[in-house]
Amino acid sequence: MNTLKIHTTRRQQFVDITAEIEKFVADSGISDGICYLFCPHTTAGITFNENWDPDVQHDMALNLDAIAPQRPDFRHAEGNSPAHVKTSLMSSDHHVFVENGRLVLGRWQGIYLAEFDGPRTRAIHLKIVAT
Amino acid sequence: MNTLKIHTTRRQQFVDITAEIEKFVADSGISDGICYLFCPHTTAGITFNENWDPDVQHDMALNLDAIAPQRPDFRHAEGNSPAHVKTSLMSSDHHVFVENGRLVLGRWQGIYLAEFDGPRTRAIHLKIVAT
Amino acid sequence: MNTLKIHTTRRQQFVDITAEIEKFVADSGISDGICYLFCPHTTAGITFNENWDPDVQHDMALNLDAIAPQRPDFRHAEGNSPAHVKTSLMSSDHHVFVENGRLVLGRWQGIYLAEFDGPRTRAIHLKIVAT
Repeated sequence: MNTLKIHTTRRQQFVDITAEIEKFVADSGISDGICYLFCPHTTAGITFNENWDPDVQHDMALNLDAIAPQRPDFRHAEGNSPAHVKTSLMSSDHHVFVENGRLVLGRWQGIYLAEFDGPRTRAIHLKIVAT
Repeated sequence: MNTLKIHTTRRQQFVDITAEIEKFVADSGISDGICYLFCPHTTAGITFNENWDPDVQHDMALNLDAIAPQRPDFRHAEGNSPAHVKTSLMSSDHHVFVENGRLVLGRWQGIYLAEFDGPRTRAIHLKIVAT
Repeated sequence: MNTLKIHTTRRQQFVDITAEIEKFVADSGISDGICYLFCPHTTAGITFNENWDPDVQHDMALNLDAIAPQRPDFRHAEGNSPAHVKTSLMSSDHHVFVENGRLVLGRWQGIYLAEFDGPRTRAIHLKIVAT
């Protein structure tokens, strides 16, 4: 198991971590397998989405703020309940296939750390298994 | 790794792909293992849900349209930001166990391609690993 | 493959199943690997979230009720369409790494059965694979 460290700079932010994960796959020397990801935080998750037009991330952030707004009847004293909800919506754990030493992603697909309570230093655990 | 091709016929549509995946498992000859799925698109995902009453898919579609409506402050010029959000909500990557050469699904559970920006031809990558 | 049985007591409830899964990992004798989870229901899922302050679960439940409210135009005759939507939002299938015979979870992270149409007896399938 390896761990990436990612420094986020805003409260809500989608950070493209595809290149870091691609490098981890290359360093592993594994040609064909599955790359597993796990985000050990409760206010940040992982998602796949478009990596071409940054406006997609902008619109995702707007939409998630509308889905999980702050509410007067929330009880969690830290005040970051929306970030907890968004994390469960995106999920903490994902996988992606590896073929010929490369991630098998769609043409427009990137892998994102989804920060919902930044800025912070976040970890992503990775494991690659040959198949 | 194998790839299914699925032709969707509507803008938003849940296509039951359980039988195609079951066939892939049978063809693999693997009795016990894990079947991994990956959808390489950013406006279509995969989800598990009820395969008995088609009204469940109807209601899911209504609810997702309410969660991710079109908005005047969206910037993505293609106009399909709701489809990107819904894809991240459903997730692109899933797994299901295999026992005795069959998918281990609940009695009412099917596997769906969740199309959010159709009609299109979509791919689903599959890999089955013996355990 | 093993199966946990969990008895839920309320309509909507987040049940911390971390200890049961930790015990399953210990009993397996596997030191390093991946623990896979699968929930074979269509009105209950699995999610990772904070296990320290129970107010987080309270706020998650409030937020999910707002995301997936009952609607007059829902057609599914059982009346539990919101539970189906919430299940797809949380996902049925997850994985977590195992190192030194322990689950690799973040400091504040627990694994939850997310019940959306209880009270019921629910199953969680588990499989641990050495890596």
